[in-house]
Amino acid sequence: MPAVIPTDSVGLVHPQTVDFPEPLTLECGRSLPGYTLAYETYGTLNAARSNAILVCHALSGDHHAAGYHSVDDRKPGWWETMIGPGKPIDSNRFFIVCSNFIGSCRGSTGPASIDPATGEPWGLNFPMVTVRDWVRTQAALADRLGIAQWAAVVGGSLGGMQVLEWAMLYPERLRHAVVIAAAPRLTAQNIAFNEVCRQAIMTDPDFHEGRYYAHGTKPRRGLALARMIGHITYLSDDAMRAKFGRDTRNGKAFSFGFDVDFEVESYLRYQGSRFVEQFDANSYLYITKALDYFDPAAAYGGDLAAAFAPIRASVLVISFSTDWRFSPERSREIVQALYRAGREVAYAEIEAAHGHDSFLLPVPQYLAVMSAYLERIAQESGR
Amino acid sequence: MPAVIPTDSVGLVHPQTVDFPEPLTLECGRSLPGYTLAYETYGTLNAARSNAILVCHALSGDHHAAGYHSVDDRKPGWWETMIGPGKPIDSNRFFIVCSNFIGSCRGSTGPASIDPATGEPWGLNFPMVTVRDWVRTQAALADRLGIAQWAAVVGGSLGGMQVLEWAMLYPERLRHAVVIAAAPRLTAQNIAFNEVCRQAIMTDPDFHEGRYYAHGTKPRRGLALARMIGHITYLSDDAMRAKFGRDTRNGKAFSFGFDVDFEVESYLRYQGSRFVEQFDANSYLYITKALDYFDPAAAYGGDLAAAFAPIRASVLVISFSTDWRFSPERSREIVQALYRAGREVAYAEIEAAHGHDSFLLPVPQYLAVMSAYLERIAQESGR
Repeated sequence: MPAVIPTDSVGLVHPQTVDFPEPLTLECGRSLPGYTLAYETYGTLNAARSNAILVCHALSGDHHAAGYHSVDDRKPGWWETMIGPGKPIDSNRFFIVCSNFIGSCRGSTGPASIDPATGEPWGLNFPMVTVRDWVRTQAALADRLGIAQWAAVVGGSLGGMQVLEWAMLYPERLRHAVVIAAAPRLTAQNIAFNEVCRQAIMTDPDFHEGRYYAHGTKPRRGLALARMIGHITYLSDDAMRAKFGRDTRNGKAFSFGFDVDFEVESYLRYQGSRFVEQFDANSYLYITKALDYFDPAAAYGGDLAAAFAPIRASVLVISFSTDWRFSPERSREIVQALYRAGREVAYAEIEAAHGHDSFLLPVPQYLAVMSAYLERIAQESGR
Repeated sequence: MPAVIPTDSVGLVHPQTVDFPEPLTLECGRSLPGYTLAYETYGTLNAARSNAILVCHALSGDHHAAGYHSVDDRKPGWWETMIGPGKPIDSNRFFIVCSNFIGSCRGSTGPASIDPATGEPWGLNFPMVTVRDWVRTQAALADRLGIAQWAAVVGGSLGGMQVLEWAMLYPERLRHAVVIAAAPRLTAQNIAFNEVCRQAIMTDPDFHEGRYYAHGTKPRRGLALARMIGHITYLSDDAMRAKFGRDTRNGKAFSFGFDVDFEVESYLRYQGSRFVEQFDANSYLYITKALDYFDPAAAYGGDLAAAFAPIRASVLVISFSTDWRFSPERSREIVQALYRAGREVAYAEIEAAHGHDSFLLPVPQYLAVMSAYLERIAQESGR
């Protein structure tokens, strides 16, 4: 943590958990005997309970979206640029909830949790979970928190898919939907990248068919490779050029060997090895599958407008010019389908250099669009 | 092989090898005690020795560019669409040479070859080889074949880099240079993908620091992953969408498990496993490093026009609209630098759906451009 907490930070925050002991039937047909969700909240719920915002996180994110857990934290939550006093999602005006999802490894029930039937970690026996399952469990959390209707549900990337699912599944439970750097479904190329990541993990000899916990190992090599591939797709070609170019590490001459020559190699190896300490490989498998499976139009013969017909929320869609993982074209598909469905939708395509990662970065035009939209929500919400 | 060899094929061809027993000092400063090149030729060298064309292959290619090795071959050489009687590179008019390069595993000296000093395979003790080294060894082959000057040197992708190097290093030894789907240097993103592929191979426990030959193993998992990543970057997002979309395998419902769900997953797994039987992992490492290192402008402070100043050949540059591995922008850098250097250059940007792979495919506009340009060369060459 910085020596002094910035005044525009929510400051020290405390993660919470809530247990749902009842069995939960999942979209795959299997059920969980019960589950735990980890979440954080920032700001205060008003008396009318009208100022609550749900923030949905992406693949490697979690419920720690803003602030610091302790004075020893070197970094704040993953969306510190967006959430805090006076920031676009203003904790002085909104009651902000960010929930981890089942299948994750960050405090909610997932494949590393103990299966009560066996006393062992679930591993690959954990049932498949989907975006719809996540939204249903978030709705259960909303019930516990006494939130009948969100002022807005907001999320980027996989978080944006959850926002869309919220708007379709519980049309009366949100007034606004903010869908950032998302897609209505993955392309074959997206699925292909996910599949290579999964193959990297599952072919690692330390994977042991997902039972690596019992072997005292983890598929470090595979998970690191998955993260390296991910990082390439999160950044634009231009951003990588600006950040690394063809610079050699410490300006050295070529090694003419297989050690690190280029800065970008060093960066990727570091990102890969760091991620292995922070994330469970099985969770990576489950979450990428949830991404692959998300396709609300499929049940309507590919007609996305038909899938969107139940939506009642006003929708803000945001994309980033250099995002090639979920390109602006994908966001425009969402916008056009919402138009066809007769829904209220605003769209902003932000000029930003950093590819998919831009949704996490303090891009001024992006923050301005978010501030203006959230200001409108705040005024409607009576704060 | 088809039941009847098509009349526009060069037909049955016989790979040849040539030994160069003299030591060869490489760009890295180390030397090889001698080396072997594998090559093929199609057509007949005319009396004036003026109709010879050198074809340079790409990462996973080899000297078998056209025709069939035996009646049991299911597939012809890798550029059968381009080379043959009546085809753009017409074997009735040209004497066509395609040479494998050192560092490869297809018949030329490489890391799987025996190091005479130890009696063991070189493995990672093989010296690093570069595009310039390849061109110097191809020049030695030209000497052996009695070819003082090529009518043209032609190549796609990494082959196009060899063409550029030929034009810079031996300006008097080629009249035309045809540079297809290439780049004057790799971007950080290109290097990043190569590095992930290398890490996949080198972290495979069966890699044994490159001495897997002695262990009776090979890094199958890592090499398959590398090939899968490669395939994603060879194809455009649109081409993958057209080829696979979100189709599930055999039209089945989602498995809600980690077996193959989508056709694209099946395709990638097949491509990966097939490649492992055909290619040596160490060669993959060396060749990707040669790609990373290629940067002729570096010695001129980044001024590509200065690097191109020695060029005397007329140059044809071709790119493909959906190629995101070596995008048209990269080809335009080559074209603009040639203009600035005062060289003769023609440029064709071909509308083609299949990304980088397009250079291997029978795209009509592409074949037409090649035919017209090669016709001009044939007339100049007196055939």
